[in-house]
Amino acid sequence: MRPIVECIPNFSEGRRPEVVEAIAEAIRGLEGVRLLDYSADQNHNRSVFTFLGGPQAVLEAAFAACKVATKLIDMTVHKGEHPRMGAADVIPLVPVKDIGIEECVQLSRELGERIASELKIPVFLYEESATRPERKGLPNIRRGQFEGMAAKIKEPEWAPDFGQAEIHPTAGAVAVGARAPLIAYNINLDTPDIEIANKIARLIRERGGGLKNVRAIGVMLEDRRLAQVSINMINYEQTALYRAFEMVKYEARRYGVNIVGSEIIGLTPMKALIDVAEYYLQLEGFEASKQILENHLL
Amino acid sequence: MRPIVECIPNFSEGRRPEVVEAIAEAIRGLEGVRLLDYSADQNHNRSVFTFLGGPQAVLEAAFAACKVATKLIDMTVHKGEHPRMGAADVIPLVPVKDIGIEECVQLSRELGERIASELKIPVFLYEESATRPERKGLPNIRRGQFEGMAAKIKEPEWAPDFGQAEIHPTAGAVAVGARAPLIAYNINLDTPDIEIANKIARLIRERGGGLKNVRAIGVMLEDRRLAQVSINMINYEQTALYRAFEMVKYEARRYGVNIVGSEIIGLTPMKALIDVAEYYLQLEGFEASKQILENHLL
Repeated sequence: MRPIVECIPNFSEGRRPEVVEAIAEAIRGLEGVRLLDYSADQNHNRSVFTFLGGPQAVLEAAFAACKVATKLIDMTVHKGEHPRMGAADVIPLVPVKDIGIEECVQLSRELGERIASELKIPVFLYEESATRPERKGLPNIRRGQFEGMAAKIKEPEWAPDFGQAEIHPTAGAVAVGARAPLIAYNINLDTPDIEIANKIARLIRERGGGLKNVRAIGVMLEDRRLAQVSINMINYEQTALYRAFEMVKYEARRYGVNIVGSEIIGLTPMKALIDVAEYYLQLEGFEASKQILENHLL
Repeated sequence: MRPIVECIPNFSEGRRPEVVEAIAEAIRGLEGVRLLDYSADQNHNRSVFTFLGGPQAVLEAAFAACKVATKLIDMTVHKGEHPRMGAADVIPLVPVKDIGIEECVQLSRELGERIASELKIPVFLYEESATRPERKGLPNIRRGQFEGMAAKIKEPEWAPDFGQAEIHPTAGAVAVGARAPLIAYNINLDTPDIEIANKIARLIRERGGGLKNVRAIGVMLEDRRLAQVSINMINYEQTALYRAFEMVKYEARRYGVNIVGSEIIGLTPMKALIDVAEYYLQLEGFEASKQILENHLL
């Protein structure tokens, strides 16, 4: 048993490469942590890092990255298209292996406590770590953004979970929480009509009476002249990828539209694709934990 | 880089549990080796073991198991339905990770040499390790079985690759060799007519003008009253599982027969199922080595 946690923190810096590199270095510098990927977006002025490791190592790395961001990012001069409320904006912790969501909730509390006490940044617990229903969703917490947070945090119902009811003058506030792994999954249609993608997105998502655990919007791929149904699969174990694929396929049919391809953005747990293979091959009695060679190597 | 080899030795004992256990213990006793599975068949009077580990550890474990089998199995009194020529009958070595087939060929030569010199059992190299074309296939080497081997091995063209041209009086001879991973894959039809399964098997296999790297026969599942196309996928990277599945589906159609399900017997590398998911989801630009989380944990 070697528990592994994934951390995907978002920082409010996507234009100064030296700041992004400094955050990457802080993560890389921690033993037992593996930085898998990071990328910066100029329009959003935001960067996302993905790293893995044991629970304590991940906590140390997330804290170290947060500390560097606090030192180098000044939210009073930050501009960007993506909503944000802090230098370290959101720090999700995801159980990957030999660890449950409850332990990640506990880990998020430890991390939040440490950020509040050592860096003097107020912390909101979100998603599975949320202490009240209205704090489950990040958009709700972040509403008002950095600029509105100074006032919002003084309202009793928006008192932070850790730290004083006062934003950090330059680093704002941060959301920390455990969440289930999420798969970013896009399905491309053979039409340039974004309205068709929008209609399909509304039909397939949970909010629209479609699949549970599915969030979807229509997106235009300008360069390919294709409309795309852009999906977040927020619980691929309960709602497998092939179900979104098949539902998009049959909803598209009413418009005489076909799927030209699909894409997984970023990381996916192996099991999400094994489930797809099991479905299409009509596999009987398959036991992934025993029968997949790599499961014996992990 | 941590090279991993799989070894799946077959021993001529499937009726005396204490002998099967003694072989299992010999494998388990070696550090760095993991015994994943073993099973004994009474009718065949034969047992199969699957274990993994680094090259040297696997060599030691295979040798240790072979030594125990040599001590406890007497081929002069062995009876069983499966063809066999030795107490340790065949020892395949399969590259799993960070190791190539060539290195497994070299490993099989080391193992063969040691078995011949220390246990006095003549060794034939087979499959990728074969020193002559007619020794590539095991059935060719094994023809005549234990009872015929005493005479066969004295023919110049059947001189063993290691050891004297003389069988071990009670342990016979053994085949050792490297081979690519193989997937045992069965497809079940909604008919009890074995002849339909036979016809489909003949059409889809390489020998019958079908798919390269596919061996297939028809088999009757008496308990389920279903006919099955029983397949060995001998190179799943070149010929993916979904291609056999789709070919069986369309060949079955001419008989008005459908697939009710399929089965993977034993182990499969993850990639074989990822390829299936990629095909059916029409995935674009998917990079398994980067995008599958578990590939970062191995």
